[in-house]
Amino acid sequence: MSPEPVLGCVVLVGAGPGPADLLTVRAMRAIQSAGALLYDALVDAEVVALAPPGCVCIQTGKRAGRASMSQDLINRLMLRLARRGLRVVRLKGGDPSIFGRVGEERRFLRSHGVAVEIVPGVTAACAAAAQFGFPLTHRGEARRLVLTTGRLETGALAADWAAADGQTTLAIYMGGGVAADLRDRMIAAGRPASTPALAVESAGGAEARLKRGTLDQLADIAASASGGPILIVVGEVAAQAVAHTAAAPEAQGRTLRA
Amino acid sequence: MSPEPVLGCVVLVGAGPGPADLLTVRAMRAIQSAGALLYDALVDAEVVALAPPGCVCIQTGKRAGRASMSQDLINRLMLRLARRGLRVVRLKGGDPSIFGRVGEERRFLRSHGVAVEIVPGVTAACAAAAQFGFPLTHRGEARRLVLTTGRLETGALAADWAAADGQTTLAIYMGGGVAADLRDRMIAAGRPASTPALAVESAGGAEARLKRGTLDQLADIAASASGGPILIVVGEVAAQAVAHTAAAPEAQGRTLRA
Repeated sequence: MSPEPVLGCVVLVGAGPGPADLLTVRAMRAIQSAGALLYDALVDAEVVALAPPGCVCIQTGKRAGRASMSQDLINRLMLRLARRGLRVVRLKGGDPSIFGRVGEERRFLRSHGVAVEIVPGVTAACAAAAQFGFPLTHRGEARRLVLTTGRLETGALAADWAAADGQTTLAIYMGGGVAADLRDRMIAAGRPASTPALAVESAGGAEARLKRGTLDQLADIAASASGGPILIVVGEVAAQAVAHTAAAPEAQGRTLRA
Repeated sequence: MSPEPVLGCVVLVGAGPGPADLLTVRAMRAIQSAGALLYDALVDAEVVALAPPGCVCIQTGKRAGRASMSQDLINRLMLRLARRGLRVVRLKGGDPSIFGRVGEERRFLRSHGVAVEIVPGVTAACAAAAQFGFPLTHRGEARRLVLTTGRLETGALAADWAAADGQTTLAIYMGGGVAADLRDRMIAAGRPASTPALAVESAGGAEARLKRGTLDQLADIAASASGGPILIVVGEVAAQAVAHTAAAPEAQGRTLRA
């Protein structure tokens, strides 16, 4: 579409919540045909293992609280690899358009004449809901879903969205560190302390853990057990969550035979 | 987990936005091993075609404005097929936990002793964002995403959430019929008439159409061209949408060779 010459190609790919069989088929194929693979620390080893022999694989960090490459460094690395003529796959946990910096990366690459393709993925809230059997919207109980994050660049939580409206399901990504603050603001905004709430650690994966409670217990249930990312869900739908679905065990098999 | 005897099994599966290669690998395998397949009218024919020989395939309707089976009839049909010992796959567009009635179906089936498994999918907002190159959250521009629907059972739109807050991206599912009402309420709530907005018809599929404009033009851009479902996006991020991504054409190939 652009008159400028296109130099190289980067595919920004959603890796989904973890297990390789929760990749989309398109994402799986992109990884399998990658010349270079840049992946966040939260991407599962079994997903990275889909890269073909000879693929340049680089972990970029981005796990909460640990050292990681700067966004600027990641951008320049993608550019350099693309200009070598490699098909570069940038793999991000969940869906790249939700808290994935896809806007910044796409803009940088396009400004340097690099073609960008985006492959969507399953976001953590959908993965947690499927895994623990609760809906994110529900007739008469939750007519909208708000996805937000506990980690703003300023460190601040905005109160404006902590709506008292009981018809909203709130899903807070990376919510572990802000649970107490969140509880206080939501209760102050009028949401009852008895509102069902849950915290899911490492949503979607084999090691996922569910803790259930109410809004006033949020700080306790959102404490991380093993350092995985914490997704918090607040709203009436949270009461439907069950620790294990009744699914046949064989249906949960996660091995990828592509 | 339950002490009651488990009779049959139903898998509630997210079909994603349309193309078969945007199914998750897990969803594809569930369809390929189905004994009975119940699918909404919006599910693509190429996805239904993945069902194995001998699979009972039943279209349930649910396209906006057309005749469809009642929810009660769908529930009873799933139950009857599961009790015959069939592995029943209930296929829904997008992600089943978002506007997919998964709570009602799961509750009904569990109350009759049927095991339920849920397989997540790519929801329409993520598919539209990937296809047209705009983010749903963006640092400094959009710190949260609200997913809501234009079709409530009462026909009413709630004004409480049409936040004046400029840091919110709003994605309205099935928004075609309510665009004018939505525009009026959002502007009345303080969102500037010049806020970027877009409407995507049949998001994620090969026939997807993007129309861009501003909030005050919402009724015009959200008019359906060919009867497909309309996803409306309002917020600063909408300005980043482009009619065609610069991806290499071969990367867009949609044929599924499993």
